[in-house]
Amino acid sequence: MSTQQPTRREPEDNPGKDGRTDSPQDSSPSPGARISRRRLLGTAGAAGAAGLVAGGAAGAYAAEATRSDPEPLTSVGSTTVSFHGRHQAGITTPLQAHGHLVAFDLAPGADRKAAAALLRRWSRTAGQLTEGEAPPDDTGIALDAGPSALTVTFGFGRTFFGRAGLKEQLPEALAPLPDFASDALEAGRSNGDLWIQIGANDGLVAFHALRALQREARGTARLRWQMNGFNRTPGATGHPMTARNLMGQIDGTNNPKPSDEDFQRRIFVPATGEPAWMAHGSYAVVRRIRMLLDSWDHLSLERQEKVVGRRKSDGAPLSGGAEDTPVRLDKVNGDGSLAIAGAAHVRVAAPASNQGAAMLRRPFSYHDGFREDGAPDAGLLFIAWQADPMKGFVPVQRKLDLGDDLSRFLRHEASALFAVPGGCAPGEYVGQALLEG
Amino acid sequence: MSTQQPTRREPEDNPGKDGRTDSPQDSSPSPGARISRRRLLGTAGAAGAAGLVAGGAAGAYAAEATRSDPEPLTSVGSTTVSFHGRHQAGITTPLQAHGHLVAFDLAPGADRKAAAALLRRWSRTAGQLTEGEAPPDDTGIALDAGPSALTVTFGFGRTFFGRAGLKEQLPEALAPLPDFASDALEAGRSNGDLWIQIGANDGLVAFHALRALQREARGTARLRWQMNGFNRTPGATGHPMTARNLMGQIDGTNNPKPSDEDFQRRIFVPATGEPAWMAHGSYAVVRRIRMLLDSWDHLSLERQEKVVGRRKSDGAPLSGGAEDTPVRLDKVNGDGSLAIAGAAHVRVAAPASNQGAAMLRRPFSYHDGFREDGAPDAGLLFIAWQADPMKGFVPVQRKLDLGDDLSRFLRHEASALFAVPGGCAPGEYVGQALLEG
Repeated sequence: MSTQQPTRREPEDNPGKDGRTDSPQDSSPSPGARISRRRLLGTAGAAGAAGLVAGGAAGAYAAEATRSDPEPLTSVGSTTVSFHGRHQAGITTPLQAHGHLVAFDLAPGADRKAAAALLRRWSRTAGQLTEGEAPPDDTGIALDAGPSALTVTFGFGRTFFGRAGLKEQLPEALAPLPDFASDALEAGRSNGDLWIQIGANDGLVAFHALRALQREARGTARLRWQMNGFNRTPGATGHPMTARNLMGQIDGTNNPKPSDEDFQRRIFVPATGEPAWMAHGSYAVVRRIRMLLDSWDHLSLERQEKVVGRRKSDGAPLSGGAEDTPVRLDKVNGDGSLAIAGAAHVRVAAPASNQGAAMLRRPFSYHDGFREDGAPDAGLLFIAWQADPMKGFVPVQRKLDLGDDLSRFLRHEASALFAVPGGCAPGEYVGQALLEG
Repeated sequence: MSTQQPTRREPEDNPGKDGRTDSPQDSSPSPGARISRRRLLGTAGAAGAAGLVAGGAAGAYAAEATRSDPEPLTSVGSTTVSFHGRHQAGITTPLQAHGHLVAFDLAPGADRKAAAALLRRWSRTAGQLTEGEAPPDDTGIALDAGPSALTVTFGFGRTFFGRAGLKEQLPEALAPLPDFASDALEAGRSNGDLWIQIGANDGLVAFHALRALQREARGTARLRWQMNGFNRTPGATGHPMTARNLMGQIDGTNNPKPSDEDFQRRIFVPATGEPAWMAHGSYAVVRRIRMLLDSWDHLSLERQEKVVGRRKSDGAPLSGGAEDTPVRLDKVNGDGSLAIAGAAHVRVAAPASNQGAAMLRRPFSYHDGFREDGAPDAGLLFIAWQADPMKGFVPVQRKLDLGDDLSRFLRHEASALFAVPGGCAPGEYVGQALLEG
C-alpha cells in the first residue's frame, strides 16, 4: 500500500458491522472484534455487556435499541483510515474537517525506555480509536460516532534525541530550520520533543482522541503546545478535494500527487534511507502562519489575484487555463507586462524557481478569536511533508522570505520540524525501530 | 411557520438551481436571482460574468466547468435555513457543527440611527449569506460551498438601550441576571450591546459570515468578545439530533420539544407581549462554562453517572427506561437508596424541582487549547432560550448554584443575556420595530 487512502463503505453494504469499514490489514478479525466497543462502553451492566459477549453484532444493536430514532451513519461517520501500514496515516489522507496539533516534552527523568513505553501505549490507543473502538476507562466523548476518518500521526523533534539518549540516531535531515528574516517565532509554541497530529471529520471524535492520548502521556511527557484547526466539512462543497484558506484562495493546487512518478521519492524516505529507522518515514514542517486578514480584505480582487498569480474564483493561473493548467511564468500580456507578476506568490514558490523543490502541503486553517487590537487571530496551520526538508520547505521558504508579494500579509509565529517514522504493523508501535534499535 | 426547520433537497431533485433549496418565503424569485452569486464572484471577467447575464443558471455551470472533478453537494452543503420568518433562525434550528458567538459595543457617538443602519446592513447580508449568495466585495472564503445550514441570529444587550437612547424600550425581562455564588465571571467576556450567533455545518462558511458581519460593523460598533464552538458533524453518528458534551454525557434530553403543547409559550414572547417590539422574540442566556475535565475524567463511570443521574452510554435515567423515559425522582433502589441521588444534576435541574421552569438549551462545545496549568480550556458555550429568563434559566441556576453534584466540575466564566427580537420579512430588518418604533 503506497498511499493511505480511507476506505469507505456505505452502512447498507455491511449492516451487521455497525457501519464500520475494514482496514486492509484487518481482513479476518474474529466476530467479537468487529463490534465497536465505544457503542457499548458503560452500558450499565446488563443488556449491553451481555450482548457483547453473547450476541456479537446483534448485541450491539440491541443495546442501541433503547435510543429513539436511530439513523444509519453516513460515510462521514463510517469512513475508516487504518492506523497501520507502510506509512503513517494523516500524510496522504484527504484533508479532514477538524485537526489538533500537540507537542510534548519528555518529563525530567523520562528516558528511552519510558519513551518506548509511551509510544507503545499511544500506538495501541491510536489503533483502537481509528477503528472506532474505545480504550479502557474511556471518556465517552466519541460515543455514538463512527471513526469519522480519524488519523493519528506521531513524530519526533530534534530535542528528543538528546533527552532520550539517542543522539546517534538523530537524522541529519532534522537539523534546525534556518532563521528566516520575516519570522516572528514564539519559542513556547515552536519545536518540541514529541508531536501528534490528529485529524477527523467530527469535532468530538478529534477531541476524544486528543484527550485519550494526552492522558497516556502523564508522567512521561508534558504538554508543550497545542493548536486547533479546521477544513471544509465533507459534502459542503461540490469539490471535496479542494481546500480554500481564510484568504479565500484555493490552496494546494500545485501539490505533488500520489500518481506522480516521483511522488514516493519526494515525500517519503526510501527503504534504504538514513537513518534506517526512518525508512518509509517523512519529515513534517509545521508553521503557524497568521494572516493579516484586515489588510488582505482591503485589497481589490484584482490586486489579490495579482499578488497570488491565480484567480480567486477557480484557482486558474493568470497565465491562462484552468486550476490544473501548468503556470506559464514567461507568458506576456498584450501590453508587454508579465501575466504572472515578478513577485507573485506562484512565481516565487514555483518548483521551476526552486530547482524542482516540492513538498506535500496538508494544512488546517485556524481561528483563535481576536487579538487585543481587534484583528483576527487566524490563518494557516501550515503542515508540509517531504523526504528531505532541504529539498522541500527550506529552499522554497528562503525564496519567499526574500519577499514575494504575499509575504506582506503573513506572519510566521511558530515553527517546528519533526521526523515522522514509517507506519507500524498491528502489534508493533510507531518508532519501535528507533527506540529498540 | 411556527418553528425554523431547515429545508433539504438533494441536488438531483433540482439540478438547474445549483443545489440550493428555496426558502418558504421565496417561492417565486426571478430566474436570475436563483443563481448563487458566490459561485461566480471574481470569475475573471469574460466567461463567468457573461454567463450570469446571458445564460442564467447554465452560465453558472459553464463558469464552473473549468474545475476538475465536480461532485454534487450533499445535504450538508445544500441545506438552507431561511433567515426570514416569524422567529429568527438559530433558535429551533438543529444544532450545527460550527458556531461563532460575537458581542459588540456601540462605538462612541453611534446613536439609534447608526444602530438602525447597522441592523439593516446586517440583516440584508445575513439574508444573502444564508441563501448561499455573497455580499459585494466578498472575501471569497465560502466560494464553492453551499449554505451549509447557515443561520445568523441577532440580539440586544441591556447596555444597548442606554447608549442608543432607547431606555423606554428596555424590556423588564432584560434585568441583569442575579449573582450566583459559584460564578467566576470575566467582565471582558460577558454582556455586550449587540450579539450575533452564527451557526453552520461548514467551518469556512461560518467564518465567512463572521468576517462579513464584522466588517459591516466598522465605525458603528466595536468587537467586545468572540467565542468559537462546535458540535457533531452531520452524519458522524447514527443519531443526528443527539448532542454529547465534552464530559461525554448526552445533553439536551429534557429540552422542550416543538411538538409540546406549551413550547411556543415557554420559548417565544407572544404576539401581544411586552414590549411590543419583542413580539415573537426570545431571550438568550449565554454562559461560557468551563469543564474541569481532568477531575471529571478521574471519576469512575459509576460515579459520573451518579453525579448526573443518567447513564452515560444512552442517557437513560438511573430510575429506569430509555433516554426519553421521564425521570422518576421518587424511585427507590432495592437497598432503600434513591435511584436518582439527592444532589444528582437531573434532580436539581428537573422542571419538577423548579415550578416547571423550562428553557431550550442549544449549546456548542468549545476548546480553546490548554491553560497554563496544563488543564484543557474547554467546556460548553451554554445558550438557553426562553420567553422569560425569570421562568427559565434563573430559577434553575439558583437551584444548581446551591450545589448539585455536577457544579463541582464546572466554572461559569462568562455570562450574558440578550433580547432577541422576532424574525423579519424580506426587505425588513431584525429590530426594526425597536429602532424605528
